[in-house]
Amino acid sequence: MNILEIISKKRDAKELSKEEIEYFVKEYVAGNITDYQASALIMAIYINGMNSQETTDLTLAMAYSGDVLDLSRFGTNVVDKHSTGGVGDKVSIILLPIIASMGIPVAKMSGRGLGFTGGTVDKLESIPGYRTKLEVDEFISNVEKIGISMIGQTMNLAPADKKIYELRDAISCVDNIPLIASSIMSKKIASGANKIVLDITVGKGAFMQTREEANKLAEKMIEIGKIANKEVECVITSMDQPLGFAVGNSLEVIEAINFLKGDMPEDLKQVVLELGSKMIKLAGKGDNLEENKQKMLEKIQSGEAFNKFKEMVKQQGGDISYLDDTTKFEKSQYITAVVAENTGVVQEIDAKEIGQLACYLGAGRTSKEENIDPTVGIILNKKVGDTVEEQDFLAYICANSQEKLKVAEKRILEIFVIK
Amino acid sequence: MNILEIISKKRDAKELSKEEIEYFVKEYVAGNITDYQASALIMAIYINGMNSQETTDLTLAMAYSGDVLDLSRFGTNVVDKHSTGGVGDKVSIILLPIIASMGIPVAKMSGRGLGFTGGTVDKLESIPGYRTKLEVDEFISNVEKIGISMIGQTMNLAPADKKIYELRDAISCVDNIPLIASSIMSKKIASGANKIVLDITVGKGAFMQTREEANKLAEKMIEIGKIANKEVECVITSMDQPLGFAVGNSLEVIEAINFLKGDMPEDLKQVVLELGSKMIKLAGKGDNLEENKQKMLEKIQSGEAFNKFKEMVKQQGGDISYLDDTTKFEKSQYITAVVAENTGVVQEIDAKEIGQLACYLGAGRTSKEENIDPTVGIILNKKVGDTVEEQDFLAYICANSQEKLKVAEKRILEIFVIK
Repeated sequence: MNILEIISKKRDAKELSKEEIEYFVKEYVAGNITDYQASALIMAIYINGMNSQETTDLTLAMAYSGDVLDLSRFGTNVVDKHSTGGVGDKVSIILLPIIASMGIPVAKMSGRGLGFTGGTVDKLESIPGYRTKLEVDEFISNVEKIGISMIGQTMNLAPADKKIYELRDAISCVDNIPLIASSIMSKKIASGANKIVLDITVGKGAFMQTREEANKLAEKMIEIGKIANKEVECVITSMDQPLGFAVGNSLEVIEAINFLKGDMPEDLKQVVLELGSKMIKLAGKGDNLEENKQKMLEKIQSGEAFNKFKEMVKQQGGDISYLDDTTKFEKSQYITAVVAENTGVVQEIDAKEIGQLACYLGAGRTSKEENIDPTVGIILNKKVGDTVEEQDFLAYICANSQEKLKVAEKRILEIFVIK
Repeated sequence: MNILEIISKKRDAKELSKEEIEYFVKEYVAGNITDYQASALIMAIYINGMNSQETTDLTLAMAYSGDVLDLSRFGTNVVDKHSTGGVGDKVSIILLPIIASMGIPVAKMSGRGLGFTGGTVDKLESIPGYRTKLEVDEFISNVEKIGISMIGQTMNLAPADKKIYELRDAISCVDNIPLIASSIMSKKIASGANKIVLDITVGKGAFMQTREEANKLAEKMIEIGKIANKEVECVITSMDQPLGFAVGNSLEVIEAINFLKGDMPEDLKQVVLELGSKMIKLAGKGDNLEENKQKMLEKIQSGEAFNKFKEMVKQQGGDISYLDDTTKFEKSQYITAVVAENTGVVQEIDAKEIGQLACYLGAGRTSKEENIDPTVGIILNKKVGDTVEEQDFLAYICANSQEKLKVAEKRILEIFVIK
């Protein structure tokens, strides 16, 4: 077996064998296959496709290219959730404490943000003291003790996926369904889940631009799951406008805390309940999705979900006084309201544009080395469908630079389409 | 303009503009585009193709990526020839002196051999003293003085083609018609020709395996020629068995000398006359191809073609006593005849196998750094269609190692298919 033969096969639109895919992944990670050879193969895969068996073989080869977290001590119903990314997506921070409060173990490793969508780890780190870098032993022990832990990727999970993803990014091969599906599923499998709920976002602020594409991705991931013996459920959610009102790290954590206290923006509530009801089902705690949603709402109303979150933050060194009193969170130097210049109904608030603007203000990073500013971002005051009168506040901008504030004020007026 | 956009376009099977192709070639040679990005683009080109305009744009961008030889002082009918490669191909060494003897200027830069096909420069260097490394001034001055010069590539001709070819070789993207056509044409244009006769070899010892492929390549090169304003004629010749009898550097030079003295193997004669008659036509010295062939034969019979070769060899420092008496050429230590083990008719002598065997004996190089041995090789005694009696000599092996000799004897018996 050699890489030239493997490249030729896929170049000629032939099916790759499990052995060939494993050889490629292993030797590429080992540095015995060059980037330019991997690049040729990835482009051939992009153009000529992979069937479900090939996609699963790639998924498993990448999943087992590094550490694999063993969560079997928590039983056979270990459920994980994943979102294909969105702007203002604080779902994990809300949903997982609710799930944990129902006695379902949550051992969640999340990524950092890159580009215009933020990462859960970055958001959690805006809680003073909260440690996201835990050794695996402590991580597992926390789940055993209190039923939940949320940390960053401390293990060497799916290094092949990381290397291939970085290459795809540099050769215009990101938006391809078999490659996206295998990338997501490999990380989930490496992080120990055997049941997975996937939130496939679709719209202006998402990878998938159309419902058709999102459906294809969902089908592909369910197929991979079947072949790899992992139960997968998909929820397709809209990401045309940001989810909820807050975009920015501490701003989103505050919104998540308020949600757990009962203050639930409607769109965010729908996504949390949709995903949660399926997680509960996969965990074997109830097949009726509507009943599951009711149980989740009860956990919020009773305060158990919020308490579970507090318990986790405390366990990981975070200052829980910030949770009780969110006014304690450090604020940005400038906070300005953007005022509507005309009357009408909000037609559009492009999620990607808002994400990029938050990133510009310092809430996200454009390269892995950058630091983020937890205090900056945008809080929407109006959402799509809302009626706006002249002089109404459209949004608040939280900035630490006057120059950036000025730019952001101008951009907000352009991003809000009011008719 | 950026490389990611260019890759995306070709990935999606869209047409690249002249500016985009020029940008890619320029920035890749400058090192501003990485190998893995070039690799992705080349694979996308391989799979999704390029139309004639794109192929011509690539050809010209590569042709003008380095030095371009100016031969305009020799008029507007400067004719060059090129072969897509063959085993036992000593055509240039025979044909070009004949052409020069007819008053058509010949300024020929040739490459070295790599792999199983030998290079004209390596062959010429087996004439003691013959200098293939001339400065451009001397090269041009020789053509002005005696009408012919044949040298190696001393100029930096089409460096983009070199870089892209090496990459193609490492990513299974060699055998693609637009890429082959642009590679060949870029080198010809950089070496100053404005009229080009192409020998497209087809068969076991050639790039092109079928006449259909060869025809496609011919069409593509004629189309490029039209767009780039270079007149192109193609001849498709068979390369199933080696051309002529000799395979190996000095062995082929001796066969070429004997040809110019009137001893012409039939298959070699046909190729030389086919190509030559078209070169004469392109040079504006006669439209009737049959008459042109007659004129060429006259130049051989009169000794003018041989004298022109001698003149060139002398001008470039070669010892012409070797041309008058070819027994002076150094011989290999071992020369053995391979004897037929059965009776029948020769059905097949796989040119590629013979080329690889000659290479194994030391006549070719497998990497650019290797030295070649001018004395070793194979001289066929029988060709396809010949009747063979038991104990007839099939071929002679010229070797400088007893071990290699033994291996070669055994291989020859396998390569000759006699039925």
